[in-house]
Amino acid sequence: MDTPIGRRRWAIAEGYIPGHSHGPTPAMESHETCCILNAGEREARIEITVYFEDRDPVGPYRLTVPAKRTHHLRFNELSEPAPIPKETSYASVIESDVPIVVQHTRLDSRQAENALITTIAYAAD
Amino acid sequence: MDTPIGRRRWAIAEGYIPGHSHGPTPAMESHETCCILNAGEREARIEITVYFEDRDPVGPYRLTVPAKRTHHLRFNELSEPAPIPKETSYASVIESDVPIVVQHTRLDSRQAENALITTIAYAAD
Amino acid sequence: MDTPIGRRRWAIAEGYIPGHSHGPTPAMESHETCCILNAGEREARIEITVYFEDRDPVGPYRLTVPAKRTHHLRFNELSEPAPIPKETSYASVIESDVPIVVQHTRLDSRQAENALITTIAYAAD
Amino acid sequence: MDTPIGRRRWAIAEGYIPGHSHGPTPAMESHETCCILNAGEREARIEITVYFEDRDPVGPYRLTVPAKRTHHLRFNELSEPAPIPKETSYASVIESDVPIVVQHTRLDSRQAENALITTIAYAAD
Repeated sequence: MDTPIGRRRWAIAEGYIPGHSHGPTPAMESHETCCILNAGEREARIEITVYFEDRDPVGPYRLTVPAKRTHHLRFNELSEPAPIPKETSYASVIESDVPIVVQHTRLDSRQAENALITTIAYAAD
Repeated sequence: MDTPIGRRRWAIAEGYIPGHSHGPTPAMESHETCCILNAGEREARIEITVYFEDRDPVGPYRLTVPAKRTHHLRFNELSEPAPIPKETSYASVIESDVPIVVQHTRLDSRQAENALITTIAYAAD
Repeated sequence: MDTPIGRRRWAIAEGYIPGHSHGPTPAMESHETCCILNAGEREARIEITVYFEDRDPVGPYRLTVPAKRTHHLRFNELSEPAPIPKETSYASVIESDVPIVVQHTRLDSRQAENALITTIAYAAD
Repeated sequence: MDTPIGRRRWAIAEGYIPGHSHGPTPAMESHETCCILNAGEREARIEITVYFEDRDPVGPYRLTVPAKRTHHLRFNELSEPAPIPKETSYASVIESDVPIVVQHTRLDSRQAENALITTIAYAAD
């Protein structure tokens, strides 16, 4: 692999953490995930900013993903500077100092059977 | 963040508002959502045009999304110039005067358990 | 809208028409859909080629989508030059003489509750 | 078709093979699929590298897809150099010597009703 795969800026316009769940935790707990792949040779330093409908954005949430690793980050688990409220519409921008690939997934287990969604995030120019 | 993230023109080729629902409203009401992120410093003035299979397009539906905000717009709630009929195939083009990011989501609760879909919309050149 | 939105060549790598269904037809019949938006001023003349795992491709399937219209084409309904077999993995390439937008959707109702998937197709350069 | 459709490098940031299933195998067995379309005139020689959260990447997994064929590869079935562990987060990079199109799909049948997700993978520049 010649050049690192991915982009440095990504966006997810959809975001919503369901308020309750069915089934055993953590596997079947309702959650929203930001899957990050850092296939390059250098650690990725990442900042996530979360946008809301009716209040100022919160962030940056900071994390690192080591070289040649993936990290499947649950938005539910973000705590610093503030946890993301449940049952609230949000969106997010993910910025990295090296190229990464970002994919968005949600498991919604509010009803008896789970529902899953996924999409590759929007890669900025 | 140097330049605003996103594009000015987006398209969603799939559109269909189910005719009925299971479960408590509004959370579990069948709906189709256009999630818009305006991460920039300026309010976004947005126009949506809706296309059908057998009649002329309807629009523009106009809305604004403030700077640094997201808006999760339910197509069900559009009313001016005309509500979108249920159980009818449609598609949409979303145009903004500043860069935005658009993601399409549907909750289909026609059967007892809900089904969810999502995709980042098509970003025009 | 200055230039027509979309591209002239699209691909969907996933394709599979489930062999059976639950629920009332046609709404709840298992199906796979190619949603096409022609937001431009000229009729789109479209050719679809279907690829398989173990036999030669079939096509082109020909259709037209009028100017400023969408068409949600069920792969189930393609018949000329040959229907697409059920329970068989396939993929498709969609070519148009004018720019269009293509989105892939499947409703799978093999089990009691339906499952839905969607993604914007791959837009070729 | 003038030039082959697709790209030579793709990435899927999400990956997770559920640990158990409901319903008849193989159709309803929980699985994760990498759908590959080679619409070109030449056989595609493909290498897949799998990335994890807490260990070194594994690969390359090698396969070929003949000219004008699709292949819907189940990650579950990869064995050489090592099977992918279940209930473990992973990501993947798919590299080909000719242009291909890649789409990611998962069938999750851990609960009584199946859940499906799909997205076109990330196409590298």
